[in-house]
Amino acid sequence: MTDSTTMISGSDPCCAGSTGWIDRGTADALATRLAAAADPVRLQVLSIIANAPAGEVCACDFVGPLEKSQPTVSHHLKVLTEAGLVEGDKRGRWIWYRLAASAVDDLAGSLGSIVVPAGTES
Amino acid sequence: MTDSTTMISGSDPCCAGSTGWIDRGTADALATRLAAAADPVRLQVLSIIANAPAGEVCACDFVGPLEKSQPTVSHHLKVLTEAGLVEGDKRGRWIWYRLAASAVDDLAGSLGSIVVPAGTES
Repeated sequence: MTDSTTMISGSDPCCAGSTGWIDRGTADALATRLAAAADPVRLQVLSIIANAPAGEVCACDFVGPLEKSQPTVSHHLKVLTEAGLVEGDKRGRWIWYRLAASAVDDLAGSLGSIVVPAGTES
Repeated sequence: MTDSTTMISGSDPCCAGSTGWIDRGTADALATRLAAAADPVRLQVLSIIANAPAGEVCACDFVGPLEKSQPTVSHHLKVLTEAGLVEGDKRGRWIWYRLAASAVDDLAGSLGSIVVPAGTES
């Protein structure tokens, strides 16, 4: 049995010599992180945090601007936290959220690198 | 009734003075494009095309490397085409696909810009 790389590097003119495309495991991991960001409410959550002067926002303060219920907001914050895009800090009753270091930039970079042919990265 | 911007720029210390986060329409459009990319098979399709020496790949040449049926491949190519991430050129029985100019880079840039506070873009 040939592996996937061998299969695309076959004799067809389109793909002769082609290698370096991402494997399924890498694609799975990136797709999971992208899916966490690929939601309008979650994109707004990220943008709201990025624009907060203190760099962090209480979970209680998304309900108004997003016009979503607290359970819905909490769900989206949970997805973003599990994807490593935001980090929460519990203080009393509420959790305060900040962006996880360069996680979104790293995710954007990973997406961009998909279309950079192998061996040509700067 | 106050608008969303007013609501997050309220008296709560977390968000006083906060503005500039993306509106729902912008978030919807970006989420739709991200969702088109947020799939492991479609990420592999983009990567395969990016690594093809001729810069284009026949729709018939994804079945082997992806280990997916032709209808499944065609579905994913359709989603990528509708999202403007790839472009097809019909020649005889098959369509040949190439990356749509800088579409993936632009998408990655849009994702990254989400976490750049308004007014601080370079």
